[in-house]
Amino acid sequence: MQLRGTGVGVGVAIGSVIRMADPLPEPPDRVSELAPDVESERATSALTATAADLAARGLTAGGTAKDVLEAQALMAADPSLGTEVENRVQAGATAERAVFDAFVGYRDMLAGMGGYLAERAADLDDISQRVRAHLAGVPAPGVPSPGHPFVLVARDLSPADTATLDLDQVSAVVTVDGGPTSHTAILAREKSIVAIVGVAGASSLLDGDSVIVDAGADTVTVGPTPDELAAAEHRIAERAAIATAPIEPGRLADGTAVPLLANLGSADGAAAAVRLGAEGVGLFRTEFLFLDAERAPGIDEQRAEYVRLLEAFPGRKVVVRVLDAGADKPLSFVNDDAEPNPALGLRGIRALRAAEPVLRDQLTALAQAEAETEAELQVMAPMIATVEETRYFTELAHELGIRVAGVMIETPAAALIADRVLGVAEFASIGTNDLTQYTMAADRLLGSVAALQDPWHPAVLRLIGEVGAAGATSGKPVGVCGEAAADPLLAVVLVGLGVTSLSMSPSAIADVRASLRGYDLADAARIARAALAAEGATEARQAARAAAEAR
Amino acid sequence: MQLRGTGVGVGVAIGSVIRMADPLPEPPDRVSELAPDVESERATSALTATAADLAARGLTAGGTAKDVLEAQALMAADPSLGTEVENRVQAGATAERAVFDAFVGYRDMLAGMGGYLAERAADLDDISQRVRAHLAGVPAPGVPSPGHPFVLVARDLSPADTATLDLDQVSAVVTVDGGPTSHTAILAREKSIVAIVGVAGASSLLDGDSVIVDAGADTVTVGPTPDELAAAEHRIAERAAIATAPIEPGRLADGTAVPLLANLGSADGAAAAVRLGAEGVGLFRTEFLFLDAERAPGIDEQRAEYVRLLEAFPGRKVVVRVLDAGADKPLSFVNDDAEPNPALGLRGIRALRAAEPVLRDQLTALAQAEAETEAELQVMAPMIATVEETRYFTELAHELGIRVAGVMIETPAAALIADRVLGVAEFASIGTNDLTQYTMAADRLLGSVAALQDPWHPAVLRLIGEVGAAGATSGKPVGVCGEAAADPLLAVVLVGLGVTSLSMSPSAIADVRASLRGYDLADAARIARAALAAEGATEARQAARAAAEAR
Repeated sequence: MQLRGTGVGVGVAIGSVIRMADPLPEPPDRVSELAPDVESERATSALTATAADLAARGLTAGGTAKDVLEAQALMAADPSLGTEVENRVQAGATAERAVFDAFVGYRDMLAGMGGYLAERAADLDDISQRVRAHLAGVPAPGVPSPGHPFVLVARDLSPADTATLDLDQVSAVVTVDGGPTSHTAILAREKSIVAIVGVAGASSLLDGDSVIVDAGADTVTVGPTPDELAAAEHRIAERAAIATAPIEPGRLADGTAVPLLANLGSADGAAAAVRLGAEGVGLFRTEFLFLDAERAPGIDEQRAEYVRLLEAFPGRKVVVRVLDAGADKPLSFVNDDAEPNPALGLRGIRALRAAEPVLRDQLTALAQAEAETEAELQVMAPMIATVEETRYFTELAHELGIRVAGVMIETPAAALIADRVLGVAEFASIGTNDLTQYTMAADRLLGSVAALQDPWHPAVLRLIGEVGAAGATSGKPVGVCGEAAADPLLAVVLVGLGVTSLSMSPSAIADVRASLRGYDLADAARIARAALAAEGATEARQAARAAAEAR
Repeated sequence: MQLRGTGVGVGVAIGSVIRMADPLPEPPDRVSELAPDVESERATSALTATAADLAARGLTAGGTAKDVLEAQALMAADPSLGTEVENRVQAGATAERAVFDAFVGYRDMLAGMGGYLAERAADLDDISQRVRAHLAGVPAPGVPSPGHPFVLVARDLSPADTATLDLDQVSAVVTVDGGPTSHTAILAREKSIVAIVGVAGASSLLDGDSVIVDAGADTVTVGPTPDELAAAEHRIAERAAIATAPIEPGRLADGTAVPLLANLGSADGAAAAVRLGAEGVGLFRTEFLFLDAERAPGIDEQRAEYVRLLEAFPGRKVVVRVLDAGADKPLSFVNDDAEPNPALGLRGIRALRAAEPVLRDQLTALAQAEAETEAELQVMAPMIATVEETRYFTELAHELGIRVAGVMIETPAAALIADRVLGVAEFASIGTNDLTQYTMAADRLLGSVAALQDPWHPAVLRLIGEVGAAGATSGKPVGVCGEAAADPLLAVVLVGLGVTSLSMSPSAIADVRASLRGYDLADAARIARAALAAEGATEARQAARAAAEAR
């Protein structure tokens, strides 16, 4: 039997299933038989212990996961939440029920606030589970530790679960919910975990089922035949060879260069990216410098961070995106948090323009950092929709000493007038995640429309092709820096559509490099045409596979 | 001196300026010198009087405005709001301050909830102003009544202001804020008020300034010359002639038929639409049947309403859109109100598919209504993004007895694969408001990005042209039913892009009919090409004007 979902990357794994335990049920709403002070003591100690546990897990995890888990620890220790629990306990509730109700109250409040805060609502459910597990003296629902490698099957994973997965034990992850840009998919890609998300049929899997998880084929094969097992083992060996192959610049079979660049969220990842073969940086996100601040950091502070990044890439291209505040990353000093649809609001270049001193400081710091280092700095603006915005940004960047200024193509509008945008900008970089979101009009963080969020949709490919064609006509480079670039077959299609460089999570570079080497430019164009002519995303992927195999 | 903004329609007016009074300032936060019970009595009577006043204005206004004003009256009389005021007064606040603080608290809460509720936040500010004006014994800030015709200049108009404008007194409206799809613009279009929104320079206008407001040219001319006045008077006379011209079917100068249809929100407007020359209905919105309900109305109830509509158009085409719930029109039994970006959420066909019994009942009721009447019913689905959704809808519609089933083109995706969508659907109707919103990635209800929400943007025109071309190839009709169809020059461009019928507010039909008669199909195609090649929306409008004059 085969189950289908959306594979993350092209990994293959063989193993037996362990299901993640179902969450704790809602505790009964009854009057406690214990004295309020006893219940209070139980609740307080469970909250404190959960906060300490989350903080400790954060220290172990490190990186982005550390921030997520520390934020969760702070939520568990929140004094007003403690007061809510205390009030309920004093009114006669059990500690379990008081915790449950207090967290539900906060969850609903957060959910109602929309945007970034609404996404944190699920975190509160997770913390509530942990506190109540502590009260019950049972392990918190979460990733099992059977002591041997296994294929983890879950409805979905919380940030805490994903961040602390033991990669020596979990050989693959299969989730019932989630799309290609869900939290689980993004973290799985970052950590090179073999994963398939959105496998509706996975609910039927049982502990101990033997499965092959083939992310490249989007399939979970249950109870495989000996032949299927042998083929999977062969694929696994092939991939191991790819991962250890010598690092060379990205290029097609005919020698056409396709630089493979890294997406980075801070300078910390630079050394690892170089090790994994990144030929430069295609997307450096600068939000981390601003996210915890009450106001924008000063020029000197920013310059120091940019110098640290640029020094890791002497003589290489480093593309920095100026602050992309708004949508799911609102900043109090730039954004209006009451927007009904933040993804369609005053975000990216729109927000920076309304807060121009922030933009000026950032461009100044970047120009100073370039002067101090040997990297080839390029700077780009997010969320461009018009030629007028393009002109505004590039003129300001040049005025402040930036040599190469370009734009991100994330709105359908910018893709459709790419010829005119590239008449002004010096390069374009396609952000396929947002471009797909707007083209399909489907929120990329919303599970109920995740099936629509697929960069293989021919409409999205068509827009990418528009930008590629404009790049060819104008002789200006066109990169892709969304998740699409990390899909080895889609990477070939992108090159066939006229894309000249690909930027991705460094862990995806080896697979993409190996894939590109299998095709020349004429192949890539032919495969792209097959995908463009398809009816939908699934059909486009199938058509590209068929065209790739027919060479 | 000329000020520029975004004209609504093509009206021209001459008059002298009266500015709308600035809002009341925040009352001082001091302890009252009166007894709490006296302040309480003041507050209660001001709230009651304001509620009564709003309800009375609703009765006078009628139509949609009645609903808006009655909702405001209910807010003013809301018991929990009254309690909030009372608590503050009992704690020593003045009635003014208690009202101010209580409304701000509710406003912030609503604003945080996102979606439709967040938009109601501005209504609360308006009610707060009215209650405090009553306390101060001054007229509520609002439209002045000088006793003679004038040009109203305001930052923006509240729904209450717009709905109760005295059209014999207000010869034109000029607002500082707002875009072409703002509340003010939509109501002005519906009521045929000469209006220009988003005139940033209008803040400098003074009471008594003599102005020409030319919506077709997007200009406010301050202190006009005698020649300018004479030209404006000529234009006004021309428009009066158009309004009283005999009603004929829409067609170009060369006789090409372009049916002019009505957008209707209920069967009530059908008779008026026929009187204004509507040759049928291009968009019948069915949300009104569902909005106040806890669950969907039954088949019989729906059929009766559809019969009432269809009977007004014997032998004519009537296009009904099935329920478009979600985004700014959430329904509790269909939508999830916690979506962070409802406009990108489970709306339109996505929501109906998740609640299929609602869709089946509606299609059944529509099929029964067609069988009882002489109209040519066509049914279409909102928010289509894939061929697969198109097939789902049309197959279900045919199964339930609908003869002609089509789709709305509102997502960039649907426009970009229009050839494949029209391989399945029997017609397409382009919703330019949402199509523009998604193409530009700019919320059409958000003031801070209103400048981006312009259907003249060449990217939007390009997508419309894609659908037009697919219609020509497949021989299937392509209509437009967004605000764009009501712009007389843009209507010519749309026909030049391959659109075969136009649907609009009935009040716009006369101007569009007159405009179409001035060009043949080759002119329209040439004017469309000029607009398509432009850099941005403003340039496209200018290029189309120049091309139209060059014939």
